[in-house]
Amino acid sequence: MPKIVDHDQRRLELVDATWRVIAERGIDAATMREIAAEAGFANGALKPYFDSKDRLLDFAFEHVFAQTNRRMDGATAGLSGRDALRAYCHEILPLDEERLAEARVAIAFWNKALRDPAKAALHERSMDQWRSALAGLLREAGFTGSQAHDAAGQGSAAELTAAVGAVMDLVLGAQITATLSPGHHGTGQLVAQLDCLLDGLLAGVAA
Amino acid sequence: MPKIVDHDQRRLELVDATWRVIAERGIDAATMREIAAEAGFANGALKPYFDSKDRLLDFAFEHVFAQTNRRMDGATAGLSGRDALRAYCHEILPLDEERLAEARVAIAFWNKALRDPAKAALHERSMDQWRSALAGLLREAGFTGSQAHDAAGQGSAAELTAAVGAVMDLVLGAQITATLSPGHHGTGQLVAQLDCLLDGLLAGVAA
Repeated sequence: MPKIVDHDQRRLELVDATWRVIAERGIDAATMREIAAEAGFANGALKPYFDSKDRLLDFAFEHVFAQTNRRMDGATAGLSGRDALRAYCHEILPLDEERLAEARVAIAFWNKALRDPAKAALHERSMDQWRSALAGLLREAGFTGSQAHDAAGQGSAAELTAAVGAVMDLVLGAQITATLSPGHHGTGQLVAQLDCLLDGLLAGVAA
Repeated sequence: MPKIVDHDQRRLELVDATWRVIAERGIDAATMREIAAEAGFANGALKPYFDSKDRLLDFAFEHVFAQTNRRMDGATAGLSGRDALRAYCHEILPLDEERLAEARVAIAFWNKALRDPAKAALHERSMDQWRSALAGLLREAGFTGSQAHDAAGQGSAAELTAAVGAVMDLVLGAQITATLSPGHHGTGQLVAQLDCLLDGLLAGVAA
């Protein structure tokens, strides 16, 4: 019986292999046999780590999500205000090959989640985490909205919720544009698209 | 041999059935057998209309796209400026059951298009059509961008392209939010998210 640390290490190797198989060949090709081959495991050797492809896919999605969050921590360290908000969003935008591969995994996962309530719930928990981070970052960047402000000059909660929702829609939509409309996914283009929204949301806040 | 008009009518019936099968049960359940059953055809009776499931799926996606465009024509008739722009975008946002079903078809199609260049090209042609319509609508609504303006007071071409890209990202991302994050897809919420972006893009233009 392997030590726990080896067990966890193996699970991560398998997740990386799953992630590569999905990103390169699609979720339908991600059979347990294909993933075992990609990871250099004998067929059947996966069972002690994941008892079904379904569990493996959930774990792979969570891994991509955790990886993005780790990059966000690094990218936003030492930044504040609008810079922190932009840096955070840039880690979701598919600005390099790694993030493009993540976008392909995400689209495959969404398609599964449409008919799998457990996957939809996992997606929703992850998105909620980003939504609350974005709400904090927008407030720190000086978002005040356009309507009724409270004593501290903050915009209404409904305006903040709408702004967070708009940012989420845009960064999720960018996954589709970047993977399926290559003419519109240059790094500069995606960043400019995000800035269109952020500039509007933070109009009147000194840069 | 059926008359041409019947042939076309049958193809549309089959597309409607395909679209219902995908929206309700997922693209994997959309076998030719399932679709024939849904349309009330005998198994095998589909061959004269579509020689493969793949062709049928392309035709179904084109049908959803054409249907959205027809609704846009109706919704924008008699409107101009910001009102026309909003009405156009609202037909893409999943604001009712019909458009939610279309969103599910779109997500399934995107997942296929990731590994099917012909489907990706079909998607790209459709999105290009929306992009040029949006560019025209943004100009008519008074979009000027924030930087260098030409003699007519129009924003730079790059700014217009970025603004169009931002709107496209947002309305595509809304398909995911609306289908997978039901707590964030109320009609009012999606409209407010879009307005966050449009208000910023058209800041300074009289409503």
